[in-house]
Amino acid sequence: MSIQPVPAFEPPYVMAVFSNARTDDASGYPETLARMEEMVATNPGYLGYESARTPGGLGITVAYFRDHESLTAWREDLEHRAAIKQGRADWYESYTLHVATVERSHGFARNG
Amino acid sequence: MSIQPVPAFEPPYVMAVFSNARTDDASGYPETLARMEEMVATNPGYLGYESARTPGGLGITVAYFRDHESLTAWREDLEHRAAIKQGRADWYESYTLHVATVERSHGFARNG
Repeated sequence: MSIQPVPAFEPPYVMAVFSNARTDDASGYPETLARMEEMVATNPGYLGYESARTPGGLGITVAYFRDHESLTAWREDLEHRAAIKQGRADWYESYTLHVATVERSHGFARNG
Repeated sequence: MSIQPVPAFEPPYVMAVFSNARTDDASGYPETLARMEEMVATNPGYLGYESARTPGGLGITVAYFRDHESLTAWREDLEHRAAIKQGRADWYESYTLHVATVERSHGFARNG
């Protein structure tokens, strides 16, 4: 995971914000997370992915796509669906998913 | 900061995703952050706020508003603008802001 935020893309594009609280059950979690990060990047409309987690606190993951069709394909991927199911069963205490169209964005970089 | 994700609201609503990498300069940062969290919550269209930071890594903050007018008022707030200016000068190595309209959302809670 890079420390750099994903850049601002040309609007409109799509983002999915997944904010979550974890359970104490970590069995299989890091492996599945790594696999999902690898898989989502193969989506033809994939733009970027970023994630942060406060230790013992909230995790926020954002995935960026060119359009809703790309996100739909990712949502319907069978291996992804199995991971979502296991997430509900084992790994997440609670989560919220917000799917949105980005209308405006900009970036700042100190030495950019 | 609660460990619970903000809930799913009735679409459409607006969210601003602020992902960032920090500098080593923390002078005044926690105080200003706390002040901004306090201030944004007084916005009439404020729905919620959540934040996560991987130690030494990326921070992601998401603010949720009822509509774009509410977000515009927050963006134009003079004390907020001063904080943004100081953020560029001192606290952030880089950041990206994505402003979007949420079209779909759902939540999950283990005991909900």
